[in-house]
Amino acid sequence: MIRLSSSFVRTLREDPADAEVASHKLLVRAGYIRRSAAGVYTWLPLGLKVLRKVEQIVREEQDGIGGQEVLFSALQPREPYERTGRWEEYGSTLFRLQDRRQDDYLLAPTHEEAFTLTVKDLFSSYKDLPTMLYQVQSKYRDEARPRAGLLRTREFIMKDAYSFDVTDEGLDASYEKQRGAYQRTFERLGLPIVICQADAGAMGGSRSEEFLHPTAVGEDTFVVSDGGYAANVEAVTTVAPPALDEAAIGALPAMHLEDTPGASTIAALTDHSNQAFPGRGPVAENGEWTRYEMLKHLVYLLTLPDGSTEPLVIAVPGDREVDPKRLETALAPAVAAPFTDADFAKHPVLKKGFIGPEGLGLESESGIRYLVDPRVVPGSAWVAGAGEQDKHVYDLVYGRDFTADGTIEAAEVRDGDPAPDGSGPLRLTRGMEMGHIFQLGRKYAEALDLKVLDENGKAVVVTMGSYGIGVTRAVAALAELYHDEKGLAWPRRLAPADVHIMATGKGQEIFEEAERIATELEAQGLEVLYDDRPKVSPGVKFKDAELLGMPTSVVVGRGLATGVVEVRDRATGEVREVSPQEVVDAVLAESRRA
Amino acid sequence: MIRLSSSFVRTLREDPADAEVASHKLLVRAGYIRRSAAGVYTWLPLGLKVLRKVEQIVREEQDGIGGQEVLFSALQPREPYERTGRWEEYGSTLFRLQDRRQDDYLLAPTHEEAFTLTVKDLFSSYKDLPTMLYQVQSKYRDEARPRAGLLRTREFIMKDAYSFDVTDEGLDASYEKQRGAYQRTFERLGLPIVICQADAGAMGGSRSEEFLHPTAVGEDTFVVSDGGYAANVEAVTTVAPPALDEAAIGALPAMHLEDTPGASTIAALTDHSNQAFPGRGPVAENGEWTRYEMLKHLVYLLTLPDGSTEPLVIAVPGDREVDPKRLETALAPAVAAPFTDADFAKHPVLKKGFIGPEGLGLESESGIRYLVDPRVVPGSAWVAGAGEQDKHVYDLVYGRDFTADGTIEAAEVRDGDPAPDGSGPLRLTRGMEMGHIFQLGRKYAEALDLKVLDENGKAVVVTMGSYGIGVTRAVAALAELYHDEKGLAWPRRLAPADVHIMATGKGQEIFEEAERIATELEAQGLEVLYDDRPKVSPGVKFKDAELLGMPTSVVVGRGLATGVVEVRDRATGEVREVSPQEVVDAVLAESRRA
Repeated sequence: MIRLSSSFVRTLREDPADAEVASHKLLVRAGYIRRSAAGVYTWLPLGLKVLRKVEQIVREEQDGIGGQEVLFSALQPREPYERTGRWEEYGSTLFRLQDRRQDDYLLAPTHEEAFTLTVKDLFSSYKDLPTMLYQVQSKYRDEARPRAGLLRTREFIMKDAYSFDVTDEGLDASYEKQRGAYQRTFERLGLPIVICQADAGAMGGSRSEEFLHPTAVGEDTFVVSDGGYAANVEAVTTVAPPALDEAAIGALPAMHLEDTPGASTIAALTDHSNQAFPGRGPVAENGEWTRYEMLKHLVYLLTLPDGSTEPLVIAVPGDREVDPKRLETALAPAVAAPFTDADFAKHPVLKKGFIGPEGLGLESESGIRYLVDPRVVPGSAWVAGAGEQDKHVYDLVYGRDFTADGTIEAAEVRDGDPAPDGSGPLRLTRGMEMGHIFQLGRKYAEALDLKVLDENGKAVVVTMGSYGIGVTRAVAALAELYHDEKGLAWPRRLAPADVHIMATGKGQEIFEEAERIATELEAQGLEVLYDDRPKVSPGVKFKDAELLGMPTSVVVGRGLATGVVEVRDRATGEVREVSPQEVVDAVLAESRRA
Repeated sequence: MIRLSSSFVRTLREDPADAEVASHKLLVRAGYIRRSAAGVYTWLPLGLKVLRKVEQIVREEQDGIGGQEVLFSALQPREPYERTGRWEEYGSTLFRLQDRRQDDYLLAPTHEEAFTLTVKDLFSSYKDLPTMLYQVQSKYRDEARPRAGLLRTREFIMKDAYSFDVTDEGLDASYEKQRGAYQRTFERLGLPIVICQADAGAMGGSRSEEFLHPTAVGEDTFVVSDGGYAANVEAVTTVAPPALDEAAIGALPAMHLEDTPGASTIAALTDHSNQAFPGRGPVAENGEWTRYEMLKHLVYLLTLPDGSTEPLVIAVPGDREVDPKRLETALAPAVAAPFTDADFAKHPVLKKGFIGPEGLGLESESGIRYLVDPRVVPGSAWVAGAGEQDKHVYDLVYGRDFTADGTIEAAEVRDGDPAPDGSGPLRLTRGMEMGHIFQLGRKYAEALDLKVLDENGKAVVVTMGSYGIGVTRAVAALAELYHDEKGLAWPRRLAPADVHIMATGKGQEIFEEAERIATELEAQGLEVLYDDRPKVSPGVKFKDAELLGMPTSVVVGRGLATGVVEVRDRATGEVREVSPQEVVDAVLAESRRA
């Protein structure tokens, strides 16, 4: 029994100064967590109880698919992370340190390397596989901007699991098992989830899905369609208009060079076109020109993994911006930076404000890589810079007048864009990444030489999957979802206690009766929080109960004199009066309802 | 059910190359742990199960005395540790790191500072106290010589608890509660313990006891007497001979200067005395001189906490060495280094090989601090250097001919020395520190300004206790205690499984029957490890069962044809034959016996 009179719990009436989101405000105000340093939190008794319940559900579902729990140190030596490239790739997000011998260590952000080496250490035959291992453990990432309480921290508890298979089919099967376990885990946690196609990004590999919890405070933007499509914005592929065949292209008007004085922006060029060539644009009803067909050319300086740099030109329809995250994903592992004036000076073919396809491409004299949006299909006609001041080319047809080195998924995704699978228009939604499953493939096994002998005695590289759930983040997401303006309102299976009993009044008989009810409920197997504080007003006790958020509370107060105690439901606000004799059964019935 | 065919367990026939002690060898060979880096280990599935069971017992006993569990980050900011002095004091044992903003952090070796600040954050009144908080969490110490597997590691799991009280009496009561909880914890773990008085050392405070598990592989030396005295060697106080009163001192022979050519060592001086003055020594029967009365003077250069240095002379009976750990404890927080020739050159009063009390002491002209062993009591007579080459003074009486600035407990403790409490001669014993409880007092609360208002509204500094148990070390100690030459032999309540079932043979009926027994035992609530590996010989299965160490095993093999299976007891080696129909009940009876 948790007795509030002696519990390490203090409630606050004021929101913490640095809190932006409800979960952060309420978890601190209700005494569940305390900030220890930027992005580092302490778990107080009530918070730790919720955390352990979340962990337990996660564990049970991992065990349910044959996962075997292990525990690795957060402190890991540099060498394996050096071999997989992550020592460098993680940049300043990795906490690095040296021991007394000046050997390099890190605080692991995830443990692919350690798991891979341990499987290599223990296993040697295809008969040993598949195997699925996991741990629930503290991870460290030196986030540039820790924020929103537990939503983005520098230390966090994560369940990370790894599967090891000999064949691609085996990996697919392991992946499906985890996918099912994740669905059951979030179902049991009471966290609605959208499974989004995600780009595996720097991790390499093939299938990759994020378990996003839709919420306004989420950091991720994803898209859904009514037909069931869901994807991370980075993973959305563009639906291109149909391409024309050679005959149809041949029938299009020829390109022509035009003066476009001062029209160095898409807006200016659109205005100019409508003024200089009214009615000759592509809009069917009125021949208007739109920003769409003004092909926008953007120039970047790419830094490749080997440190070398090269220019890159990207063309997108003029009505779209480039989405920095989609661009980053499309170019990884190369990194793009905006072109500077100095860079422009080195490449006179790139006439700022009037750039067009002329003179671009790896095969051209300039050798500058040139990529276009997937909507730039053979037969599509565009207006683009002519490569000289105040001149643009009209009726420039892709596949006839110009080509590119390839396409790139970098243009922004917008509400109403068609879903790639034809399932209807997309809606942009905010979400919080609660889990991520993906097929690492053989990247780590190759880097760390994890091989087993196959049926023919031949050494084959193992293929891996990686599966993570943010456990501390899940607590924050739950607090974000299950609260109202008065405080937290935990789902029964995750609450620190089943029932919150309040003795409100001064009479000794009130405290005795509250104590009796608390003791009986505990004897019946319920977890009981008992507000036995002697000199605290009923008002404060009610407020604290609402803030702390146990699903059911019992008020033993003045009504006791007339044979009545109150049973309150935190989620619905419903209040029922029952007799002291009935209250234990009434609460037990509530607790079984969930 | 743990099925060996698909478990992440591999046994080794060979001891790991770096293993010195049985627990290390066996835990690695049985696949319970794996080394990840120097002093850093990975917990594999079977090891993690034992670890969790040990943690659970520790938790239950902490909860039983009203301890409230919390969880702090291993990553802690420098500032509070700076305020208590531990950022510096810990020296190179502290893992230090910087984040991306170059702010200093550490990986906490213990969490006094963090707990103190959190109590300060939440509590403000004497009514809030006492409170007892604890966590079970990974700690980090950059040991110079990690060794012996889990016995001395750089990352380890520890239960650290802290008590907060207003009064000294309150602290005593909290301390006693923990003392009881520790006794019950180690009793339940099956680890014999000797509670030793310990020096609180750099931690400050008053009562301090170590829970030492007597074992030959222990790093600590402690002493016990038949009468029940037990103490860390550092905490032993010397039993001094009776002092003489002034009249008795007046009756002693006067001191006299003698030539002692070349007698610059205790051995040489003793020989010289017996040759030059035969029969005039203190041994009653024959007037022999012994090394005891040749007063040995040792010189150190002390470095004080403020960085300044000063010389220190210590005198001990010539038959004893100075114990470096007792010296270190006696001088803390100052640190002693041996005097160098250059140091001697600066202090001509210190005539190497012939140093005596003449000219020493804070009040003397030299101002050199001079401390003597507690056996140097008023009226005791000594032979000591005269401060000049080849000369010693005989019949030098303390309290008449010389005095010192004080006494120091630096001389070694030897087998047979009397216990300070008169409980008989001491025996030196090796032990492993499993737990440590001590009264921190107000040191941390003062440094971090933890005050509460007392009954009169006056702010008073809180007094604290600190209570640690090495959880991972306890697993090693258990493995060290519960094993034989064949492998591990876990106590039932800590074993990864209650029963180890082996199917030994090729017939399908053998595997079917083993599976049935395993399933039924699991249905009865037992944890079952089932060796279902199809192509592994009975010999290998027997050896693995002995190495893995479940308390009971069942062999389903050739005997099945004649209606017999074997039940084996790992600890006693007893083998019983029972019928397949009886085996479930037989194993259940075994499992209830413990």
